[in-house]
Amino acid sequence: MVGCVIVKNEVVVGEGWHEFAGEPHAEINALAAAGEDANDATVYVTLEPCDHHGKTPPCVEALIDAGVGKVIAAMEDPFPQVAGRGLDRLDKAGIATEVGLMSSAAELLNAGFIARVTRNRPLVRVKVAASLDGAIAMKSGESQWITGPQARDDVQRLRARSGAIMTGIGTVLADDPSLNVRLTELTIAGLQPLRVVLDSRLRMPLAAGMLTLPGATLICCTGSHDHSRLNDAGAEVLSFGASGDAVDISAVLEELARRGVNDVLVEAGPGVTGYLLEKELVDELVIYQAPHIMGSETRGMFSTPSWLALADRRVLDICDVRRIGDDTRITARVKH
Amino acid sequence: MVGCVIVKNEVVVGEGWHEFAGEPHAEINALAAAGEDANDATVYVTLEPCDHHGKTPPCVEALIDAGVGKVIAAMEDPFPQVAGRGLDRLDKAGIATEVGLMSSAAELLNAGFIARVTRNRPLVRVKVAASLDGAIAMKSGESQWITGPQARDDVQRLRARSGAIMTGIGTVLADDPSLNVRLTELTIAGLQPLRVVLDSRLRMPLAAGMLTLPGATLICCTGSHDHSRLNDAGAEVLSFGASGDAVDISAVLEELARRGVNDVLVEAGPGVTGYLLEKELVDELVIYQAPHIMGSETRGMFSTPSWLALADRRVLDICDVRRIGDDTRITARVKH
Repeated sequence: MVGCVIVKNEVVVGEGWHEFAGEPHAEINALAAAGEDANDATVYVTLEPCDHHGKTPPCVEALIDAGVGKVIAAMEDPFPQVAGRGLDRLDKAGIATEVGLMSSAAELLNAGFIARVTRNRPLVRVKVAASLDGAIAMKSGESQWITGPQARDDVQRLRARSGAIMTGIGTVLADDPSLNVRLTELTIAGLQPLRVVLDSRLRMPLAAGMLTLPGATLICCTGSHDHSRLNDAGAEVLSFGASGDAVDISAVLEELARRGVNDVLVEAGPGVTGYLLEKELVDELVIYQAPHIMGSETRGMFSTPSWLALADRRVLDICDVRRIGDDTRITARVKH
Repeated sequence: MVGCVIVKNEVVVGEGWHEFAGEPHAEINALAAAGEDANDATVYVTLEPCDHHGKTPPCVEALIDAGVGKVIAAMEDPFPQVAGRGLDRLDKAGIATEVGLMSSAAELLNAGFIARVTRNRPLVRVKVAASLDGAIAMKSGESQWITGPQARDDVQRLRARSGAIMTGIGTVLADDPSLNVRLTELTIAGLQPLRVVLDSRLRMPLAAGMLTLPGATLICCTGSHDHSRLNDAGAEVLSFGASGDAVDISAVLEELARRGVNDVLVEAGPGVTGYLLEKELVDELVIYQAPHIMGSETRGMFSTPSWLALADRRVLDICDVRRIGDDTRITARVKH
């Protein structure tokens, strides 16, 4: 997610953004919009311009050819092996460069991309809907509509910005979730995030609703199982190492990074989300808090059997709190 | 808590408020500040002026004597038997009156007073400190400093605006709380809220710290016990009816109303607070939410064994959400 604005004599002469993987980068679109005005102009871009031939030619060459006067990048390219090279080449071509303007905002915009290229795993965002006293369901399992319709629409936006949506087989068996983007205005060319089901013993039912929906489903099991029936139903099945009785989620996250997934949205039960917290694999929590008190005969948000002392708790950095309909959405980073 | 502003020719000529029980009312103080300017002026007051001789002479007479032109009251006196009488008498004296300006703000200001005179019990405000996932302690009981110092200072303000602070014997035995106002700038003449301990079997230890502090302590038990040792330690002991194994808190609240207590702050464990929620005795919740995830091996905020279905949950009206240090304070009304 990169944007570019070209300014000449204090007037914006061109804007562009990277609209889709494989399509022209932000700088190319902004240069096209600016035309001749790009000559001697100042280029603001949220990420260092690329100096390599990927799916498109290097943006650095286009900037030099257009004769721009100055390039101000919010941040360097996070790939350690290429960071600074694009700016270097501009410098050598006599174009002034600066880096760091609004870098924290730029880093937030591409936190998933940065996680993937620097930590070899996607950003992991865990979404939970709970009451104000931290309950996600009654002990009986009763849980429908804890949060309101606006919060559920908001989750659609979280899904749309994710490369994959992860859940556990327990949630599939209990709720048969679709895990798709239903608001079509949020999709690009109908593309859906990859659905990922953690299912160590391969209990995924062939009748699962998500298998009938557009988009791909990846079932992650452990050990050896017959994959054919699920393959026939259109799902991909991969076996991973085990962590106790569960799938080693770190290995799944590496596989997702290998496939280019920047952001994983986890919509799962307390077992999966608690495991991720215990393993320090959660980057961001998005909690939709309903204005309800559900009391003690309920299920809590996260199952964390290894946290026995207060010192085991995780400290959060609250990034954003806002009302979504009757509910409150809290976005927080987990400090590690 | 009543305030009065006197305005003449669009200029404030006098202000006053009811500073202390038994001292002059707001109108009297404002009239004194306005002096001769009160003649033909408009008087804004948050509560209907009184027309009876209580601890002070009736304000209505003073307003008539001062020759004010108009009186605008935010709300009528909540005592059903006197509501409207003060305004009527002003009308009959030829002074124009209006009622209802900013009435919801005025009702909020005196919610405790209104509860006492219309429902024969104080407003019950329950304070809880919890993690974002609703835990108040680890299962082991470990719980010190879940919220930060600013939140603890803020609780001092909650205490200072309360006529009584209520807790359970479990909290006394576990934490030996002081339940006093330690910030002296928050007290008036060193007055402390009444400390109320729910202690059905009269287990209150003579060594409890609160018994050594300025201010009164009321121990509420059931059945007959020897009160003398606690009386000797300076505490008052009263026996109430029982509700199951517990003290009938409704009867305690009636006793507090009889003593003129408008606001009760409950700082107690999940047993007492859950019982109050189950019995629909909670008017307001003040939740200090620490930016922490404490997980599943914890104690929840409220023990509500009778709430087994989602339909049993209580719906809240969130009145205020703000950051207090690192914590979030949520003030909510319980809908009944």
